[in-house]
Amino acid sequence: MNDIATRVWNHKWKIDPIVRSLIDTDFYKLLMCQSVFRKHPTTQVRFSLINRSIHVPLAHLIDEGELREQLDHVRTLSLTRGESTWLRGNTFYGKRQMFRPDFMEWFENLRLPEYHLERVGEQYELTFEGPWPEVMLWEIPALAILMELRSRAVLRDMGRFELQVLYARAMTRVWEKVERLRALEDLRLADFGTRRRHSFLWQDWCVQALREGLGDNFAGTSNCLIAKNRDVEAIGTNAHELPMIYAALADGDAALARAPYDVLADWQEEHEGNLRIILPDTYGTEGFLENAPDWLAGWTGIRVDSGDPATGAETAIRWWKERGENPTEKLVIFSDGLDVDKIEELHRQFQGRVRVSFGWGTLLTNDFRGLVADDALAPFSLVCKAVEADGRPTVKLSDNPRKAMGPKAEIARYKRVFDVGDQDAMEVVV
Amino acid sequence: MNDIATRVWNHKWKIDPIVRSLIDTDFYKLLMCQSVFRKHPTTQVRFSLINRSIHVPLAHLIDEGELREQLDHVRTLSLTRGESTWLRGNTFYGKRQMFRPDFMEWFENLRLPEYHLERVGEQYELTFEGPWPEVMLWEIPALAILMELRSRAVLRDMGRFELQVLYARAMTRVWEKVERLRALEDLRLADFGTRRRHSFLWQDWCVQALREGLGDNFAGTSNCLIAKNRDVEAIGTNAHELPMIYAALADGDAALARAPYDVLADWQEEHEGNLRIILPDTYGTEGFLENAPDWLAGWTGIRVDSGDPATGAETAIRWWKERGENPTEKLVIFSDGLDVDKIEELHRQFQGRVRVSFGWGTLLTNDFRGLVADDALAPFSLVCKAVEADGRPTVKLSDNPRKAMGPKAEIARYKRVFDVGDQDAMEVVV
Repeated sequence: MNDIATRVWNHKWKIDPIVRSLIDTDFYKLLMCQSVFRKHPTTQVRFSLINRSIHVPLAHLIDEGELREQLDHVRTLSLTRGESTWLRGNTFYGKRQMFRPDFMEWFENLRLPEYHLERVGEQYELTFEGPWPEVMLWEIPALAILMELRSRAVLRDMGRFELQVLYARAMTRVWEKVERLRALEDLRLADFGTRRRHSFLWQDWCVQALREGLGDNFAGTSNCLIAKNRDVEAIGTNAHELPMIYAALADGDAALARAPYDVLADWQEEHEGNLRIILPDTYGTEGFLENAPDWLAGWTGIRVDSGDPATGAETAIRWWKERGENPTEKLVIFSDGLDVDKIEELHRQFQGRVRVSFGWGTLLTNDFRGLVADDALAPFSLVCKAVEADGRPTVKLSDNPRKAMGPKAEIARYKRVFDVGDQDAMEVVV
Repeated sequence: MNDIATRVWNHKWKIDPIVRSLIDTDFYKLLMCQSVFRKHPTTQVRFSLINRSIHVPLAHLIDEGELREQLDHVRTLSLTRGESTWLRGNTFYGKRQMFRPDFMEWFENLRLPEYHLERVGEQYELTFEGPWPEVMLWEIPALAILMELRSRAVLRDMGRFELQVLYARAMTRVWEKVERLRALEDLRLADFGTRRRHSFLWQDWCVQALREGLGDNFAGTSNCLIAKNRDVEAIGTNAHELPMIYAALADGDAALARAPYDVLADWQEEHEGNLRIILPDTYGTEGFLENAPDWLAGWTGIRVDSGDPATGAETAIRWWKERGENPTEKLVIFSDGLDVDKIEELHRQFQGRVRVSFGWGTLLTNDFRGLVADDALAPFSLVCKAVEADGRPTVKLSDNPRKAMGPKAEIARYKRVFDVGDQDAMEVVV
């Protein structure tokens, strides 16, 4: 029995929207947004799409008209009453009313600002300009739209059963990963895969599969909409855009050197417990920890997001010990390019020595490698970054020089100020 | 948006019926039934369930109450107007009105006769007695019900995503087979998997996957309901029950020796073209062909259903040559325990030498081998056979002594009458 009304309703959509909610975004974006809304509401920023995988010709694969329709659709979205209620009423990390009334009121009235889209050769130039708290919310939907339009472009010519079998294969693959992860004692793992997911529905499936397969070892998802719909924990803390913009706004080298700690001082005013997670790699983990004030050693943990993850964790453990902290009470969150092999390896190496948590991203929600001809669904490295703040360029160094970004002269200056020496280059897959 | 009415309706079912239509059966059953209805309407027969895989304790796995409910449900079924229209109006093998009005009228008024069910140790004794044309129609639904109840018993304790991944794996497996079969030039293949299918919905999926994957090389399905619903060809000719019952009814050895040919003489009166397919192995292929009348060599082809299939086909080719026929114009249908390896091998060996067709059964519609713990979904060898006709026992020898059935003394007599010497025993998996 077909539900005729549903069918007719579905056919009334002019497009099949990829992002259908303002909270179809990472939880940490909202946490950071509230912080930015309070401290830097008028800072003008520019975010820009960067396709690190230049072998993927996005402008060939994705129709510009379709891309505009999807982006335009996001600009029609506003927070629904139910979404607002969920954000206002929910307990995050055991804390009630994490989002303050003034922020919620602002968010309820928000529409995302304009975008600028231009085709340049085989790539799109996609930028967003305006007040920081508004523009920053474009990052995740913009990436999710581009990733899913690319998936749709590849899937368009496949037969119905060919499609079903494609998803059958991808499901089997996820489940085989889940079965391996199930064997890891006291595993703690969350979905961090929103931005580079194959599609919304696929991420939603992966989250549910993890919940059934891992039970209590599944910590939650970074995606607020899925967390809300599926009644799982929303997970996340903060990201590189905070130190990058704070650094860009700093006047002179002394202020620049202080900027990454200013970020965390502001953060500490607002958050406690599981939200006090250091992201140390923006301008080199080694130097960051060496020069860190003692109060930072009292924070809950650290997130390792570039460079060799084992090295990053060992560095953190050494640092805690130096500062008189007990590493077994500290949390290390691994979140860079994880897949099951790496998770198993890191779990083996660090379980018992620190509290370990995994933020599993692209290779959870977009592992279609090898499943179609020419590997046309393989994930690739697409990011959307703050490139300018109040007219000044931003810089990121990270623990992997291949992830560095910014004008050459500025990179050199930052390396000098932050005393970054030689770094090991690592391939950036996703 | 849920369709509330559909949901409420679904919850009103007291059971989830496995067989929901009298034409959810093999096409050849209906062809044979018409023949039997015309020639032997009052012959009393007994069909009996035989589980050749005694390691599968059906009575432990399947609840007797559930089994009775399913069997009772089948007895409530009658031919619907649409099913009748399809049978009356369809063209089968290019022939219109294959089913005569008197048969259709009888079929439209048919309800299946009573069954006798008893638990004996770890197995069920399930028998059906009555007029041949009625009782014979129990075979396929009885087998399908037992197979699917066994599947359900195994699936009952699985989680939702575990289940989805199970089907994802099974779909992937079918599709990998399809992809291999696609490489075979001029392949001709049909679904013969109704009786030992994993479930109705699964067979339905397999048929659709074959249609998309193999295109015109997919010849159709033996299942009438699926053929009707999916608008594909219904495929089939005749089975062992005809010679077995004709043989049981024969008075004396001379009549017994003639019985298998009498079957085909009756068949020839009714059918032509693709329906003139010899099934020679009931009492040994070698002897059957050696003693066959010349008019049989003029038939369209032969179905190889036991023993080593290549040997069977070579025997047929030799026989056609001896009788002055051109084997390249003849059809060989392989239908015993096929899977892709065997199909590829036989295709390689015989393509070009004869016309080849494959009736792919259990390992198409029930290949869940290795997909759950203890291999609890592996297919097994369950049959439902005519064991008595007008009070006399039936006998089957086949080209594989492990498939032989009947009272010992009668088997010995048949072996003598049909001059069956040594046979190679082959494992019966499905």
